[in-house]
Amino acid sequence: LSECMSNDRMREQLAFLAEIDALKTIVRQSPLADRSRRENSAEHSWHLAMFALVFADDATVDTARVIQMLLVHDIVEIDAGDTPIHGDHDRQAVAAREEAAADRLFGILPEDQAANLLALWQEFEAAQTPEARFAKALDRLQPLLLNTLTGGGTWAENGVSEADVLARYGPTIERGSTALWRHARTLVERHFADAGVDRG
Amino acid sequence: LSECMSNDRMREQLAFLAEIDALKTIVRQSPLADRSRRENSAEHSWHLAMFALVFADDATVDTARVIQMLLVHDIVEIDAGDTPIHGDHDRQAVAAREEAAADRLFGILPEDQAANLLALWQEFEAAQTPEARFAKALDRLQPLLLNTLTGGGTWAENGVSEADVLARYGPTIERGSTALWRHARTLVERHFADAGVDRG
Ligand SMILES: [Ca+2]
Repeated sequence: LSECMSNDRMREQLAFLAEIDALKTIVRQSPLADRSRRENSAEHSWHLAMFALVFADDATVDTARVIQMLLVHDIVEIDAGDTPIHGDHDRQAVAAREEAAADRLFGILPEDQAANLLALWQEFEAAQTPEARFAKALDRLQPLLLNTLTGGGTWAENGVSEADVLARYGPTIERGSTALWRHARTLVERHFADAGVDRG
Repeated sequence: LSECMSNDRMREQLAFLAEIDALKTIVRQSPLADRSRRENSAEHSWHLAMFALVFADDATVDTARVIQMLLVHDIVEIDAGDTPIHGDHDRQAVAAREEAAADRLFGILPEDQAANLLALWQEFEAAQTPEARFAKALDRLQPLLLNTLTGGGTWAENGVSEADVLARYGPTIERGSTALWRHARTLVERHFADAGVDRG
């Protein structure tokens, strides 16, 4: 224990933990369930980790790795900002900004931990492993749930149709878990049926 | 996969995940590092999970279990409210309120998961296992760090002396990790030396 926790090492670790406090100030588009304000990326990350604790437990993925991935997945937003799902973005420019952010932020940590967290974030972004696909699915499912709980949330704000929702959320959730998408799809269909709004 | 993810099960899981969104509205005493507002218990739980990802990795504890414990440790506050460290409380009344909250909130989940998360929360509260002691240490270290980053934070607000800080934070942190307390203690000493305030 004492060997792995030198003063220099702890200084770097605490500097990183102080720096990422800023994730609490990155405001997303999603409303809280009680509609009192918009969600920030730190509490969003906690909520997603709880989604993983509950749903990954039932799936054939490494729950601990899914949780760790979701805890770090938005840290790059401290430098690069949040990129809302409903909107046009220069994907390459966003990716370049996020990579620079990952290098700077994880780079505050001791070298071995910087490499580990960078690899975890890159695995999430690449969406190739079962754990990354499951994590990506939860990252789409959570705002979907908040929107259905708040009379439409960002869908209502942005005039997003049922067809748009199925197209923007479906593939990512289904790639992570067909069971989750089957269930989420009924939430979406029920929402648009109840709302009596544009079904696209 | 399909067997473990029935519709009824997922309905209960989503009801729980919708209910715990309310942890984002439980405001704690601690300031954010940028002093823009006070911290809420959901983002606090994310921050603590990151502390565990960084520090438990170096310690002889099960990192995944420490993280899971910290993700759920404050969920009872949705019903029972936050109990600030600096203040007088009827410990038995607080414990009774929190136990009722744990029963109700975790009880929304399917029975097996309700039992697992209740056990995880009880392990944290009992502070007997190495993982629970480490988690408790981080739950004290994180507000200590925020206070030193913000010119005193809740210590300055409540006229808390250096002796009070050493007495209220030291034993819990040291029980989880002597290395962490050795380092945290120097942060406290430096803070009070720099502040030139009451050393108690
Ligand atoms: Ca996200």
